[in-house]
Amino acid sequence: MANNKKLVEAITSMEEDFAQWYTDVVKKADLIDYTSVKGCMVIKPAGYAIWENIQHELDRRFKETGVENVYLPMFIPESLLQKEKDHVEGFAPEVAWVTHGGLEPLQERLCVRPTSETLFCDFYAKDIQSHRDLPKVYNQWCSVVRWEKTTRPFLRSREFLWQEGHTAHATAEEAEERTIQMLNLYADFCEEVLAIPVIKGKKTDKEKFAGAEATYTIESLMHDGKALQSGTSHNFGDGFAKAFGIQYTDKENKLQYVHQTSWGMTTRMIGAIIMVHGDNSGLVLPPRIAPVQAVIIPIQQRKEGVLENAEKLQAQLKAAGIRVKTDMTDKSPGFKFAEQEMRGIPVRIECGPKDMEANQAVVVRRDTREKIMVSLDNLAESVQQILDTMQKDMLERARAHREAHTYEATDYETFKKTVEEKPGFVKAMWCGCRECEDKIKEDVQATSRCIPFEQENLSDKCVVCGKPAKKMVYWGRAY
Amino acid sequence: MANNKKLVEAITSMEEDFAQWYTDVVKKADLIDYTSVKGCMVIKPAGYAIWENIQHELDRRFKETGVENVYLPMFIPESLLQKEKDHVEGFAPEVAWVTHGGLEPLQERLCVRPTSETLFCDFYAKDIQSHRDLPKVYNQWCSVVRWEKTTRPFLRSREFLWQEGHTAHATAEEAEERTIQMLNLYADFCEEVLAIPVIKGKKTDKEKFAGAEATYTIESLMHDGKALQSGTSHNFGDGFAKAFGIQYTDKENKLQYVHQTSWGMTTRMIGAIIMVHGDNSGLVLPPRIAPVQAVIIPIQQRKEGVLENAEKLQAQLKAAGIRVKTDMTDKSPGFKFAEQEMRGIPVRIECGPKDMEANQAVVVRRDTREKIMVSLDNLAESVQQILDTMQKDMLERARAHREAHTYEATDYETFKKTVEEKPGFVKAMWCGCRECEDKIKEDVQATSRCIPFEQENLSDKCVVCGKPAKKMVYWGRAY
Repeated sequence: MANNKKLVEAITSMEEDFAQWYTDVVKKADLIDYTSVKGCMVIKPAGYAIWENIQHELDRRFKETGVENVYLPMFIPESLLQKEKDHVEGFAPEVAWVTHGGLEPLQERLCVRPTSETLFCDFYAKDIQSHRDLPKVYNQWCSVVRWEKTTRPFLRSREFLWQEGHTAHATAEEAEERTIQMLNLYADFCEEVLAIPVIKGKKTDKEKFAGAEATYTIESLMHDGKALQSGTSHNFGDGFAKAFGIQYTDKENKLQYVHQTSWGMTTRMIGAIIMVHGDNSGLVLPPRIAPVQAVIIPIQQRKEGVLENAEKLQAQLKAAGIRVKTDMTDKSPGFKFAEQEMRGIPVRIECGPKDMEANQAVVVRRDTREKIMVSLDNLAESVQQILDTMQKDMLERARAHREAHTYEATDYETFKKTVEEKPGFVKAMWCGCRECEDKIKEDVQATSRCIPFEQENLSDKCVVCGKPAKKMVYWGRAY
Repeated sequence: MANNKKLVEAITSMEEDFAQWYTDVVKKADLIDYTSVKGCMVIKPAGYAIWENIQHELDRRFKETGVENVYLPMFIPESLLQKEKDHVEGFAPEVAWVTHGGLEPLQERLCVRPTSETLFCDFYAKDIQSHRDLPKVYNQWCSVVRWEKTTRPFLRSREFLWQEGHTAHATAEEAEERTIQMLNLYADFCEEVLAIPVIKGKKTDKEKFAGAEATYTIESLMHDGKALQSGTSHNFGDGFAKAFGIQYTDKENKLQYVHQTSWGMTTRMIGAIIMVHGDNSGLVLPPRIAPVQAVIIPIQQRKEGVLENAEKLQAQLKAAGIRVKTDMTDKSPGFKFAEQEMRGIPVRIECGPKDMEANQAVVVRRDTREKIMVSLDNLAESVQQILDTMQKDMLERARAHREAHTYEATDYETFKKTVEEKPGFVKAMWCGCRECEDKIKEDVQATSRCIPFEQENLSDKCVVCGKPAKKMVYWGRAY
């Protein structure tokens, strides 16, 4: 039926059309399907299993820092959404409204949560009385809805899955500490597990979250040189607490407002994995997040002993904790290879009668296509080493790509030319004015990605207006 | 501040007012809170952790049978909901409608999923072409919305959490086999993990799921003698497949309709745990589902070595795989005991200076309040044994309670009197007519719970009309 060539030909090359390449990969790697609900997708087993691994790993890391999971309603009464002025302005234009329950119109319309700050505040206002009730370090795993006009699988859809942490603290210092702690947690997760290097920094006022005092972000660079905001952590100060009346009595029995944070990471990270690591043969999954890390492909599988041998090897790998499957279907080996590549399975293990005779298997890395002869005597150990090396190499390669696509500009002509001709990050000095940010957006459609924690002094002047510079900023076009 | 007495006095006794007792327990055991969104609740950390354990254990069992997880949209276009006639009639009166996205009215209104058969069918119609694509054995963990008029925490809320499995098979036999397989999985889970014994059976046509050919159910009995439907598994035959055009080409290249099933279990099981096992001191959690299985309560904790000893014991228990916490707060031991009881932690471990001297600890079971002296030399082993015994005893006690509250009736007067005077299940013969079911509902507000797989021949006549009986049915008042 289908064949190797057909499968491979099916994706557009990324050099030719990156957006089409992306769409082809999410479809051909069987991650999603479109639905009758405009802007919403089905996340298929191969895609959802990646999300389950992300959840599992993040949740474990959260709980180590004292996070507790909860679940709040998916609906927000309109009056509740409106309690914090900046917040409602930011979100009201893009929410979905429920107006009828059953056959009756509702007395007050409800929006489907685009984010749950207002609900958590409403809850905390009742739940927090004394300093003994603090801190609250809660998180929920759920789906949220934002009525976007243009959508793309994983990157921007009307409904997406995420976690949202919401905390309340006695002091401003503690809230700031938690905000940074979670940003660091996200950064470590991205680098250690997803093999995606990130820039940590603060958002400008223009780009910060609606209602936040400060928004911190991790920014990553995709293969096409566009930036992706990969996780954010917000410090709300006591702004929401004042709007919602969240107060506690301190040790001296005085009423104080709490200080709050929130932080989130979403299914868009699956998009990031695709766009950072993928190639023209399809998806490339970092071993630590791959639902299947190794696939055994028996060669000449009808010959005596080949399938039995494959089963034996699978059992060995499984016992060693490697997530392994064997492809015993009647497809040709070539087709199976192409499928393993399209689906981004980190390594394939080829083993036929000749290999068995030589007491070896051929292990092929998905990222480099390197073929490694491995003795069957210590197969599991060797495969684990190859997976570990691959994980490390993928991070290094992504970091090298980012370095090679990070530029500097100290005058505006160079800045604009760089943004337009060299996709990537541009580092440049900034005076701190909204006007300069707006001008850059208008002139070259780039936004401030972040004010990185690691500052460099490239010059004393703002790259746009020439006035004294306050900060170095990463600029770029973004998803 | 608060004291032992106050905490205990805070709950109504179950004999006095079972409904109020239930409400008190969910609040005082810190499982939920009410919200500004009518009919929706906050599931707090102590409640959500139970759900996480349910999810983890069910998901593991699902995956062992080949289930794969996916995620489908939370919205259903009205036209899609209407494709299967019985289904829309069953659900349309109780759905929430989204009519606006952002500032614009929608062209077609969307309901928030009350269940996802229609979405899965829409997806399968595209995703299934050949017999090679079958079976599809998909599941999703999500929240659903049903616009109920009267609500109660966990038992009936406008939004609740659940899993819904949706499968598609080549043959009717395979679909029936999967339907029963999942019912058995639910039954085993309830008995082995939640210590809740269940009756397995089939729903009558009146009580079956909207659009199903057959609905199977597990029914459990609460402490007050009311029944609770605890999990359902539906066989749709090819009804939905015909309505949605889900066809595959078989091995002879002929077009065939698929046969489908769906099955679900919800957060209402947390309500079941409360109502089967709870007592007048609060919640009693079966050890296998308890987020915290043992709490160490140091006695005279300011005395030298007491806290250090508690930490050592905690480390030992943790290393043995027991979920353990130590309560080192400055509350009195009595208050800590009452709190452990209210929250249903299976055992508490009391250890003070005298116990340390005697190289022992006092282990107190939550269910029986039995105090067991245990040597510190093999504490972890002893605690694990106590937890295992408690798990077994709780199931047996619940089973004995159910047996003691299961009655038989062979004439209608006795039947009505039993339903009205003796809360519990009533076994009685039935002719198979809807009219007799309706009459029972009208006369004594009892419903057919199920036609059990284990049939008994109590008499030859229907308990209502006296015509020849077809089946024995479990009847009862239900949540």
